Amino acid sequence: MFSNGGPKQLGRREFLGALAVGGASAAGQAAPPLATSLPEPMARPGGADLAYGLPAPEEAHVERALSMTAGFPVWRTPLQRQRGVITPSGLHFAVHHNGVPEIDPRRHVLLLHGLVNQPLRFDLERLLRYPMVSRVHFLECAGNSAANALSPTALDQTLGEIAGEVSCSEWTGVPLSYLLREAGLKDTAQWVVAEGADGGSHSRSLPLKALLEDGMVALFQNGERLRPSQGYPMRLFMPGWEGNVNIKWLHRLEVTDAPAYTKDESGLYTQVLADGGIERFAFHMEVKSVITHPSGQQRLHEPHGFYEISGLAWSGRGRIARVDVSVDGGRSWTPAQLHAPVLDRAFTRFTLPWQWRGHRAELMSRATDEQGRTQPLRSEWKRRYAMHSFNHYNAVQAWRVQVDGRVENLYA
Amino acid sequence: MFSNGGPKQLGRREFLGALAVGGASAAGQAAPPLATSLPEPMARPGGADLAYGLPAPEEAHVERALSMTAGFPVWRTPLQRQRGVITPSGLHFAVHHNGVPEIDPRRHVLLLHGLVNQPLRFDLERLLRYPMVSRVHFLECAGNSAANALSPTALDQTLGEIAGEVSCSEWTGVPLSYLLREAGLKDTAQWVVAEGADGGSHSRSLPLKALLEDGMVALFQNGERLRPSQGYPMRLFMPGWEGNVNIKWLHRLEVTDAPAYTKDESGLYTQVLADGGIERFAFHMEVKSVITHPSGQQRLHEPHGFYEISGLAWSGRGRIARVDVSVDGGRSWTPAQLHAPVLDRAFTRFTLPWQWRGHRAELMSRATDEQGRTQPLRSEWKRRYAMHSFNHYNAVQAWRVQVDGRVENLYA
Repeated sequence: MFSNGGPKQLGRREFLGALAVGGASAAGQAAPPLATSLPEPMARPGGADLAYGLPAPEEAHVERALSMTAGFPVWRTPLQRQRGVITPSGLHFAVHHNGVPEIDPRRHVLLLHGLVNQPLRFDLERLLRYPMVSRVHFLECAGNSAANALSPTALDQTLGEIAGEVSCSEWTGVPLSYLLREAGLKDTAQWVVAEGADGGSHSRSLPLKALLEDGMVALFQNGERLRPSQGYPMRLFMPGWEGNVNIKWLHRLEVTDAPAYTKDESGLYTQVLADGGIERFAFHMEVKSVITHPSGQQRLHEPHGFYEISGLAWSGRGRIARVDVSVDGGRSWTPAQLHAPVLDRAFTRFTLPWQWRGHRAELMSRATDEQGRTQPLRSEWKRRYAMHSFNHYNAVQAWRVQVDGRVENLYA
Repeated sequence: MFSNGGPKQLGRREFLGALAVGGASAAGQAAPPLATSLPEPMARPGGADLAYGLPAPEEAHVERALSMTAGFPVWRTPLQRQRGVITPSGLHFAVHHNGVPEIDPRRHVLLLHGLVNQPLRFDLERLLRYPMVSRVHFLECAGNSAANALSPTALDQTLGEIAGEVSCSEWTGVPLSYLLREAGLKDTAQWVVAEGADGGSHSRSLPLKALLEDGMVALFQNGERLRPSQGYPMRLFMPGWEGNVNIKWLHRLEVTDAPAYTKDESGLYTQVLADGGIERFAFHMEVKSVITHPSGQQRLHEPHGFYEISGLAWSGRGRIARVDVSVDGGRSWTPAQLHAPVLDRAFTRFTLPWQWRGHRAELMSRATDEQGRTQPLRSEWKRRYAMHSFNHYNAVQAWRVQVDGRVENLYA
């Protein structure tokens, strides 16, 4: 039934069979006679709760991984511990070019000016009066998975350390089109320069047309106000676009007729191609996927056991159409199950049942979006970009399962 | 255009017009010349971030409301501050019959026994090996809105205080059918008695058939492990069913041929009807809705201004099909916009644009689910149940907007 340890799709019947085959060691263990003593917590009254709840103390190790990259702190989501598609706000990735500013929400003002008929300013109280929309979207740093692009050998790290500059939340805010149309756009209006109220005035130029279609001034994340790390009290949000254009601590939108070529867009966030060309204003994050379970530095404790392969896929250009999974280093591929709801520019969870037989295995996932775009192999991605380029890395992530069950990062 | 201050649905064009009508005071304010000095936070480097992020200190007032009800603490979600449909885990409602037990996840075991071929026990490590599913669902206490049912006059409270025993999360766990079928069900199996590892061994009897269809042992909430307040390390989850059957700190499932008539189901969670009949094992929470903005104790500061009426609707029996809103105390109704995705047994956000003209207004929402069930008026609900009954209260919630803009709870 699993003669090759291959990625054969299991029906419910077969899956249950698979568990039963392993007997007590692969499935639930046969129960001993009912203990006469109750579990210890049942012998005493429970403790008090908090007005704002927190994770269990036993889960304190589940936190963001910090590293200094290009001189600034990068906090990565431990995707290898996430189930489902919503990232807890406390674990959302963050890249801070200029630290986290302390902003008094009562004094913060968003200025909308430039090529408009009537410059406008909005304080929080006023913005909260506008109609709002909520959407579940991923957010990914342009530089996510940079080490996979740059390191000549695959680094032995967790998934979060490798590719944790991506998270997914429900974002709520005011469609930017309402504010822009209220100000009135002049005929020459083509771009918008958005600026944050941080110490380095992080700023980017964005095409007006796209902002009118999809842009939002986000005020809430996962049902509560934005957190300081995510731009409190307001940020720009452009679904599917690279993280750094989603300007945090947003305080100024200037409508212009041309890009401003700010330091943040002419430098770090422009990509050099292998042929010497330059990819500028390449906003969309491409189709990508990662297997979260099993993944780097996890360990499969039981050979000849059932494991569910589970992962996340996303695309900045629409919905995920399919994810194929290989457990033999790419020689054969099996379509994974996509879990509903499959939302536009959001994490989609995929799974595939797998029976591990204690052999060395190479696990890979390859996502395709509704536009038909598919992840390249690392070698293909490297051929397209210059040696030192690392932004927009979306190549297939592979994991090697060693015979002792340890899982390691692998270049496929 | 708004001659009656009525609930006329506004197109985008009209909405923008509405803003413009109010001029600088109703919409964004005309901007003064650009200040020569930058916002103060831009003049200094930003601060550090945390490995596990928290809300802004300025939002510390957004917390759960605590009250002692029937002798135990009830923590209510401040729904009047929630946008979107996901409730932050820190603000999820909780009712603690026996406090919050401290459970060591390495020692916690789930026992599955009774009318099965092979009793089984599952520790956490083992459960985490099973295939998992994730679903966005609301969870509501049977006694939510009890004060509206019992108090002879409408209490002047916030929405959270009135009806905050309901929240919505993405729940992830192992379908119970996998575990039950693995144990093997005897022919006489009809019910399952689920018991928590809390000091009062909270327990309920549930029909086996429903558990096989929809039941889950939930291990994750909103992407991270369950919090202590929500049953860490595991709870039973039955979508759309009253909160107390979703046994927290789940440690035992006993398959039986009949209900156990536990103290928790023969007492508090049985409803007495007006005709003397008894509603027992009435698990489904009914179709319900609340306007979150504007709602109790909020204040509309600007007469003759645009306000978006925004609210949440849900049903334990399926998807929300429509929500009608009245701003004139129920004399006329207008269909609200339902925001996608409209998910099964989950919060659905609805909105309706509204122009307030400074008059006394009575706002109401009335949800209908895909089964065609509609919320009753309070008088209709009261006719069905005995005078002292309060569980499963789902009558239309009304708010009165006073001429000074203050919003108050109102019995419609």
